[in-house]
Amino acid sequence: MSSKEPCPVARSADLLGDRWSLLIVRDLFDGIRRFSDIQRNLGAARNILSDRLRKLVEAGILQTRPASDGTAYQEYALTQKGQQLFPLVVALRQWGERHLFEPGEAHSLLIDKRTGQNIPRMHPIDQNGLDLPPEATEVRKV
Amino acid sequence: MSSKEPCPVARSADLLGDRWSLLIVRDLFDGIRRFSDIQRNLGAARNILSDRLRKLVEAGILQTRPASDGTAYQEYALTQKGQQLFPLVVALRQWGERHLFEPGEAHSLLIDKRTGQNIPRMHPIDQNGLDLPPEATEVRKV
Repeated sequence: MSSKEPCPVARSADLLGDRWSLLIVRDLFDGIRRFSDIQRNLGAARNILSDRLRKLVEAGILQTRPASDGTAYQEYALTQKGQQLFPLVVALRQWGERHLFEPGEAHSLLIDKRTGQNIPRMHPIDQNGLDLPPEATEVRKV
Repeated sequence: MSSKEPCPVARSADLLGDRWSLLIVRDLFDGIRRFSDIQRNLGAARNILSDRLRKLVEAGILQTRPASDGTAYQEYALTQKGQQLFPLVVALRQWGERHLFEPGEAHSLLIDKRTGQNIPRMHPIDQNGLDLPPEATEVRKV
């Protein structure tokens, strides 16, 4: 699919419709920043991880910088564009929590650090702030 | 990665971290329901499309049913579990709209059918309904 694709969902899916890329972005939100740490956490082959990191940097989602501990290592950081993937990661998380675990099966939780509480379910809203179900929407093609 | 993965983001990414699967789900939300129509819209090879549709049915995201026009065709429909992927599709769309188009470049729009308006940006909220930035959150591991 070319970059002339007029559907924003398709352009995002072209870039992020890949298990490794999504998990790298998740790791960055979790504060995992070094190649070796991401590799250990994901169990990814070195060449696959290098490829995905390079693509995410080229796409402006990640940037590299010197390690924050002053060592000679390099680390990865989310750019502002990458930070704005937070709703996507939350959508993956909340759907997974709801549908991919058995009742009572333990899973990691995303909590509000200020309160320690689980965060409410995120959903699309209308101009009045009310829940907007898919059947109330339609796609207007260009 | 096994299904014992305790991170809901990872379980969702295992199932949906694939460009074709995401675009099939998008097409279903857009009312495209038949194999031949999805194939034409996505330009996917027949075997790839069959494989992804089968996996989505096995995962309980899609179901098959007789065609709504009374012909002998079969069509696909989102299950309730599949319908609940709406926030994920909206997250992909809104990030793509914001970051993957040049200023002024045309893209399809998701509108509220009742008002014709573009839908507001979706974002995670805290217990008081206020915008919750990623730095105010943390993941609590199991």
